[in-house]
Amino acid sequence: MEVNNGGAAGQPEGFSSVIPGWFSEISPMWPGEAHSLKVEKILFQGKSDYQNVIVFQSSTYGKVLVLDGVIQLTERDECAYQEMITHLPLCSISNPKKVLVIGGGDGGVLREVSRHASVEKIDICEIDKMVVDVAKEYFPSVAVGFEDPRVTLHIGDGVAFLKAVPEGTYDAVIVDSSDPIGPAQELFEKPFFQSVAKALRPGGVVCTQAESIWLHMHIIEDIVANCRQIFKGSVNYAWTTVPTYPSGVIGFMLCSTEGPPVDFKKPINPIDADDSHVKTKGPLKFYNSEIHSAAFCLPSFARKVIESKAN
Amino acid sequence: MEVNNGGAAGQPEGFSSVIPGWFSEISPMWPGEAHSLKVEKILFQGKSDYQNVIVFQSSTYGKVLVLDGVIQLTERDECAYQEMITHLPLCSISNPKKVLVIGGGDGGVLREVSRHASVEKIDICEIDKMVVDVAKEYFPSVAVGFEDPRVTLHIGDGVAFLKAVPEGTYDAVIVDSSDPIGPAQELFEKPFFQSVAKALRPGGVVCTQAESIWLHMHIIEDIVANCRQIFKGSVNYAWTTVPTYPSGVIGFMLCSTEGPPVDFKKPINPIDADDSHVKTKGPLKFYNSEIHSAAFCLPSFARKVIESKAN
Repeated sequence: MEVNNGGAAGQPEGFSSVIPGWFSEISPMWPGEAHSLKVEKILFQGKSDYQNVIVFQSSTYGKVLVLDGVIQLTERDECAYQEMITHLPLCSISNPKKVLVIGGGDGGVLREVSRHASVEKIDICEIDKMVVDVAKEYFPSVAVGFEDPRVTLHIGDGVAFLKAVPEGTYDAVIVDSSDPIGPAQELFEKPFFQSVAKALRPGGVVCTQAESIWLHMHIIEDIVANCRQIFKGSVNYAWTTVPTYPSGVIGFMLCSTEGPPVDFKKPINPIDADDSHVKTKGPLKFYNSEIHSAAFCLPSFARKVIESKAN
Repeated sequence: MEVNNGGAAGQPEGFSSVIPGWFSEISPMWPGEAHSLKVEKILFQGKSDYQNVIVFQSSTYGKVLVLDGVIQLTERDECAYQEMITHLPLCSISNPKKVLVIGGGDGGVLREVSRHASVEKIDICEIDKMVVDVAKEYFPSVAVGFEDPRVTLHIGDGVAFLKAVPEGTYDAVIVDSSDPIGPAQELFEKPFFQSVAKALRPGGVVCTQAESIWLHMHIIEDIVANCRQIFKGSVNYAWTTVPTYPSGVIGFMLCSTEGPPVDFKKPINPIDADDSHVKTKGPLKFYNSEIHSAAFCLPSFARKVIESKAN
């Protein structure tokens, strides 16, 4: 259907439009502000067991995936998020072999993990099959990640999946979640981080989506405090730019378990070193070793809060 | 007046509202997207000889200054822009004494320049007196920069002002301009950069507002190419996060003239070293030496374009 009215009438559920024909992202997570994209055409709308799912063609950001009214990815800027959430952890350890992705049902993180030739096994646990199906149909350049033969897809609850994982299984866990309102809520809580720590080998690493320094310092404070208690290796916060995420930035919590030390700020496994992945996946658009290290440099207002929690 | 309608009727000139009671930033400079802020109250609206000027109280970003429909600053995030555009150049040279600010009529850059104890003289040339007057009335924590006795305010055209400056006058020039549509257009053109280079001492530095890597790579390409021709010292591009600027980032072009070499990536005049400024101006909220160096690390897509122009 075409969007051509500005009110609630005729809008699909979960679709806010404040300009006729535009999609606006309004949420109590960022009160008083909204980013809007001009809609050319709504391509898909559905309601899964977990959330409202919408795909639309925007006029300047390519196709856009929206879950419960919140933009998850656009074709124009998804590279920043997917490349950073993946290569920040995987380039920080040598020779990652077993990787678990929680969430990430669009396949973009898988696409990035599969650039690493050392990786032998990639598990992904996504709660919502509709996200996977929609990604495969509308975002083939993202969902291409599912085509790697090393990938095993588990549809189910990430919290339950992790509890059943034998201790010390993974070299890296990547938590590509939505915001802590809705199905992803438990992925920001202490018991979940404890399961992650248990599932990692000594000196293994986790990278979780960790909100915006401009909007959510109170959430970040809690995450840092929890992680500092649970992860006995390194605990660091990084951030990057994603124009279509609220406030234009997104952060990542990077932690390692007790064991061989990990210095997240100095990538020891540079992806640029072996560029065989470029032939099949295309070049990296965003990530490089310089921006890896730079991502850990925080504005003073954020550094003050995060460092006080971390020590 | 209160904003309580969503259409054009009853809106002040230069004020777009796509949600009733919200201000939306719509421009051909960023087609197909718009950032909106909820308006509590419009505090000022006027039309100067150069542009429409609006000040409103937003519900979550404090007071907001809008010129020709484009957000120039909000109380909540102005620290990022003002601190970076000022300290990136001034911390890159030792002992800056004479500084010229072009634009910057809100006074925020002056506030930051005046943290530097070595500075003896600060000239500012702002074309629009209404911006200065409005800043002094509605943004006292920003316009406080005008109170420094080292400051001399010149109301007039920055291009003409620079042409009259004796060769080699300044250690640093900071160009705090709006976008290259409207009164700031000439500040992005080659003759202007030539005047800047002439006004600087050997090894002097300039920092200009240089748009968004996500939205304006074509403009940035041109600026870099021009600067590489004109400035025979260093030519570097840096960027930072500002949530209320389009795409959530803003860039800076940093150049030095022939003379003592300047390595912008390694600040040699750290502002943190002498914190006497904190007593009178308060602590820095955003800038620190780490984020200074990190600002020069570019995403791969931007690095590719900028480095190809720079060499």
